[in-house]
Amino acid sequence: MLGVLGGMGPMATVDFMGKVVQNTPAACDQDHIQVVVCMAANIPDRTAAILGEGTDPFPAMRATVRWLETAGATCIAIPCNTAHHWHAALQAETSVRILHIVDAVADTLAGQGGCIGVLATSGTVKAGIYQKRLALRGFSCRTPDAAGQAEVMRAIRLVKAGQLAEATTILRAQAEAMVAAGCRQVVMACTEIPVALATVNGALRSVLVDATEALACACVEACTTGAADPALPLAV
Amino acid sequence: MLGVLGGMGPMATVDFMGKVVQNTPAACDQDHIQVVVCMAANIPDRTAAILGEGTDPFPAMRATVRWLETAGATCIAIPCNTAHHWHAALQAETSVRILHIVDAVADTLAGQGGCIGVLATSGTVKAGIYQKRLALRGFSCRTPDAAGQAEVMRAIRLVKAGQLAEATTILRAQAEAMVAAGCRQVVMACTEIPVALATVNGALRSVLVDATEALACACVEACTTGAADPALPLAV
Repeated sequence: MLGVLGGMGPMATVDFMGKVVQNTPAACDQDHIQVVVCMAANIPDRTAAILGEGTDPFPAMRATVRWLETAGATCIAIPCNTAHHWHAALQAETSVRILHIVDAVADTLAGQGGCIGVLATSGTVKAGIYQKRLALRGFSCRTPDAAGQAEVMRAIRLVKAGQLAEATTILRAQAEAMVAAGCRQVVMACTEIPVALATVNGALRSVLVDATEALACACVEACTTGAADPALPLAV
Repeated sequence: MLGVLGGMGPMATVDFMGKVVQNTPAACDQDHIQVVVCMAANIPDRTAAILGEGTDPFPAMRATVRWLETAGATCIAIPCNTAHHWHAALQAETSVRILHIVDAVADTLAGQGGCIGVLATSGTVKAGIYQKRLALRGFSCRTPDAAGQAEVMRAIRLVKAGQLAEATTILRAQAEAMVAAGCRQVVMACTEIPVALATVNGALRSVLVDATEALACACVEACTTGAADPALPLAV
């Protein structure tokens, strides 16, 4: 059973859940995988914490991970890129495998090495979540300059507040700038970004990598291979 | 905290969750309501059971409702119209309020009385879920004839299998037939139907009533009024 540490943000979790369902080979309800989703909206802002400006979200995330483990999750996903700053610390708290969103992205990148653009929160960028983990796979990362990064953060907050149109305009421009700067592919490395760029078509679409979808596909694979999941009701 | 007995079907649950998030007054993640969703894909087919052709889904639904109660849900929603055949029996098993989707729909219907079209599963129609409960509010119901109902069921199964385009064509024609037969409004009374009719515009859009959205709004209201919800981690 897949356990989802969700709510960071809520619409991004919904987008992730939709991508899990869409990527599950199924002809009827009963073919789908068992999932428990916690929309834990009380988790403090991740970027603020990384930038030293907010409450530590780790205790609330740890509590929800432990709760998902108790509920019977056999693997856990966190549809929030920035929250992966605490991935290793969370993994140390549970024996249940927590999939890593950057590994899921790396598995979908074309070719070997090269420069990859990363559109992400300032927290994800500052913590080096993509830079460090993609370097292990031979890729280098480009992130926007300070002014561009501020625009990306503004767009992400617009998505969280439900104002998609302006967010789409900002993020499309930033993605195009990365392609112009030589990036072969551009990772939408914040779960709000694919929500805003869902309507983008043409040449830009073909270079965008959806981290949310990559994580969803990794979850489906993890939950549909190997032993059958125990059925609900859950072991609590 | 909202508890969601989901997975009937999975994409309908995702659609419901999106409507909960969209209808929550929120400017940032932390403004959203706490939700726990069980995607209990192992629940047997509801329509088959009502038609006497399948396994009783009640034990699996009861187990999940009890689990949501243990998890700390202060109200429960079931984003599956047909499952409401067991609403009273499920409510008898828990002290947590289970919102009723037909009550949520009735609260959104325009005017007093008149004939309302109902597009639903054959199980929902045969069980009289809408007919009985809307009659209490002064409305009469029209459902498709046998051939039309078979088409509606086929469209619903197409949605569950991810084949939206053909489902949209079928359901639009059935909805238009109900308007032609004198229905003032047409309820999309199966949670798969709004997924298929999301792209319908024009005059037909203005008479369509989205039962999923009505339930989502009722949930937001139930969870944002009164005492503050206890924060996650949940009491299990």
